[in-house]
Order: sequence, then structure tokens, then C-alpha cells
Amino acid sequence: MRISLVQYAPKLNDPQANIDATSALIQSNNSDLYVLPELSNSGYNFNGFEEAYRASEELDNSNFIKALLALAKAKNTLIVSGFCERENRRLYNSSVLLGPNGIIGLYRKLHLFLNEKDIFTPGNKELPVFDTPWGKIGMLVCFDWMFPEAWRKLALQGAQLIAHPSNLVLPYCQSVVPSYALVNRCFIATANRIGTEDQLTFTGQSILANPNGEVLLRADTDKSQVLSTEIDLHLAKDKFITQKNDAFKDRRTDVYGNLDPK
Amino acid sequence: MRISLVQYAPKLNDPQANIDATSALIQSNNSDLYVLPELSNSGYNFNGFEEAYRASEELDNSNFIKALLALAKAKNTLIVSGFCERENRRLYNSSVLLGPNGIIGLYRKLHLFLNEKDIFTPGNKELPVFDTPWGKIGMLVCFDWMFPEAWRKLALQGAQLIAHPSNLVLPYCQSVVPSYALVNRCFIATANRIGTEDQLTFTGQSILANPNGEVLLRADTDKSQVLSTEIDLHLAKDKFITQKNDAFKDRRTDVYGNLDPK
Repeated sequence: MRISLVQYAPKLNDPQANIDATSALIQSNNSDLYVLPELSNSGYNFNGFEEAYRASEELDNSNFIKALLALAKAKNTLIVSGFCERENRRLYNSSVLLGPNGIIGLYRKLHLFLNEKDIFTPGNKELPVFDTPWGKIGMLVCFDWMFPEAWRKLALQGAQLIAHPSNLVLPYCQSVVPSYALVNRCFIATANRIGTEDQLTFTGQSILANPNGEVLLRADTDKSQVLSTEIDLHLAKDKFITQKNDAFKDRRTDVYGNLDPK
Repeated sequence: MRISLVQYAPKLNDPQANIDATSALIQSNNSDLYVLPELSNSGYNFNGFEEAYRASEELDNSNFIKALLALAKAKNTLIVSGFCERENRRLYNSSVLLGPNGIIGLYRKLHLFLNEKDIFTPGNKELPVFDTPWGKIGMLVCFDWMFPEAWRKLALQGAQLIAHPSNLVLPYCQSVVPSYALVNRCFIATANRIGTEDQLTFTGQSILANPNGEVLLRADTDKSQVLSTEIDLHLAKDKFITQKNDAFKDRRTDVYGNLDPK
């Protein structure tokens, strides 16, 4: 399959600008899966809950999602995007997986960063993995990266690719992604944003790593870019390290369990 | 505290040579903790169980351990070393933590690599963490590195430093160690061996990383070396990432548990 990392700068509180920008970037090439940054419909650095609330949208009543669904249908492609989601009076820092036939999956960020804790409700959709024609896809959002359990649990549930919409302000995650890909033997696609909002500067360097921990794509720190390459998600089904070692079956669940909920 | 990574080439089936070599390297400088490679008493690439059995020693009746204990006492220091351990007819790929007053701790490798499965019994001592005057120390051995649960569980149990005697033949681990140190906010000291045994060439590049994922020490690929630096294990007690984020307390144990045994 052909995968694209879409790196750009969503505009805070300007939903139409973000629809236009993401549409243009997706239409600029042909891929089977596009991964967009976190909060691509809304921007990131809200001045409190009420501003975020006004920028949020309901999943089934969102102009942003409708535009992406139309693109997914027109281009017969999958799209993963971060999404400022409203459900009743609650906001979630979510990621959606969209396909030609509609919404395939929803994930809500489990681990909230800094002031996000004052705005969003922590995710309540666990760590779901979704079937697609190319293979199983899981999602994480930005700061989730600090928690090795999240990557591991998605991989143990069969995720061959973990799509990771991000608004990273620190440069550490991009150096850790190849390690997570290697030890979990899966693909990881981190689509980070660029640009500045108030005091926050986002670090770009969107990255795609394969199950050998090799970096297949890496974007610049500050350029709007669509980077693409061919990958084979079947490679992530092979958990063998040597003929006598399986990265998953060799786990000592008798000592550290199987990441089952407490 | 001052820590030293001791990188050298243990000799297969020549215990006295290994006692002499490790003693000389430890005596070459003054540190509070020395970390030696995996199977430092015996070498690695045994031609089957019987050869390994002859090279193995009982913990309480080992000339190698006695020599290291004498050094630990004489230099008032801690020593971590890989150790080919015999208990009845079973062999373990173990690591010991020694101090001026005797044996402090024993760990037995949980995850055996390739032909080790034909020789050693998988570890049955769980993932213990030991108190020392400098802080809490846990141990892993070589291929254990592929399993993020092992690092995480040691850190969750309070390990401020994870000492990691190794005989690595692939170069991946050294690139992953800084990531594990970063996400677990602890120090990691990987002491790898050098040299060649039959077809196996060991990759050196012993590495020390701090809780920020920074590499403090990195050895060459093929030189016998003792690399040393000052570290403060108290830094590993600080799990704060931001004023609102704690790397451990933010974990969503309701989703992925707490690494309790299955």
C-alpha cells in the first residue's frame, strides 16, 4: 500500500481553512492511507474550555469529517486524522479512521498533556484496532507516545500499523518511534504538525518507521509536506526474531501479565 | 555516584583468565558501581549443554564470585556481573549484584535467545529490585531488552538504575536503550562484550543513558574499555514531565493494567 504523512499547520479556530488545507494536501498525490496531525479540524492551543468547545464538532455532524469522507470516497482511500470532538458537553482529543464507505473507527486520546487536562475528557474508548483491506490499524494521539503500554497493547491486539496524529512540541518522540516499531514489530506513522501558536512551536519531523526500526520517511521541522512511500503491512505479522524467538510468544506473561485492564 | 561500564572479551571456558581480566579492569579505576557483561565467568558460545555445565558455577561456590566479592570489599564498591550459574542440574544465565558485605541480589534471565534455549532454564526469580546505598537497582540480561514490559516493570518497582550485562550480536539494542531510559525516567547501563566466538561477533558499544534519554557514555565497537562518569540516581525518582504530567501516575491502568503477573 502507499502511505502518506501529511504535515502542515492547522489554523486555530478556522475550520474552513483547515478543510481547505487538508483537502489540497490530500488531493496533491495518490495514496491508500493519509495520516494527518492531531486536532486537524481546530488547531491546538485553545484559551480554555469554552474556546475549545466552540471549535469542537460532533462526529456525525462535522463539516471537517464530511469533507474528509468525501475525499476518501472520491480517491478510494483511507484517512486518519486528529479531531477535536464534542459529545454532549464533553470534549475529546480524538482520532478518526475514515474510508470510502464511511467512518471505520474512533479513538479518544488516553493520556492528556499539560493544559489539555483542563479542556478534554480522558479517552473512554480503550485501545481499539480496526480491520481495513490493507491490514489492522490502531491509533494513538501525540503524548500517548510516552506510555510503552499503549503501543504494546495495540500491537498485541494485532495492529500492523499504528497511526499517530500529533502536535508535538518536544523533539523526543521522533527519536523513540523507531524503537517502539522495532520491539513491537509493527509500522508506526507519526504525522506531526508544524507552525506556532502563541508560545508553542511544533516540531514537525513527521516519521514513518517499519518493523525493523528503520526510518522510511522523515519530514522537515518546519515545512508543509506530504511524504509518501510503499509499505507492506504483512511484514508486521511476522514476529519472529530468530528461528527460536518470537517477539510476542517469548513474553513472560507469568511475570508481567498481558496488559489486561486492572 | 561514579559508575563504570566494563567492556571486554570474556574467554570461553577459561575461568581464571576471566577472573584476571575483570579484576584488572576493575582495579584500573575507582568507581562506586561497575557493570560487567553477560556470562563474564564463562564466555558465551558453548557447544551444547554439557560444555556450559562444566563452565558453570554455583553462586555460593564460585571462584569468580569470590574474586569479585573480594574486589567489592577492597574497593568498597558495587559490582554487577553476568554469571553462568548452576543450581543442581539446571543452568541459568544470571546476573549478580555484589557489594562490600556480600551478595546483594540475583536475577536470572527471563528471555533466552536462540540456542540459549537448549542450554539454560528460563529465569525463575521474577524481576527483583535491590536497595543499595545509592538507590534501587534492577537487572536485565542482554536479549531481555526486546521486551518493554521488563524495563517498565523494574522502573515501576522503583529501579532508579537498570544494569544490563550483555553479549549482543546485533546493533539494535544500543539504539533502543535511550528510549527505554526516557520513557521510564531511569538510568540504564548496558555493558556489552566485544570479540568473536566461532561465528559470533559481539558488538560492543556499551552505553549509559540517563532519565532524559541522553547518552552519557558510549564505548567503541571492538575495544576493551572501562568508561566512567558521575551520575545522580535521585534524578530517576522524579517522574514529572510537566507540572501536570507524571510519567507513572498518568498511566491508564484501567485500560492496560499494571504489569501484574497473569
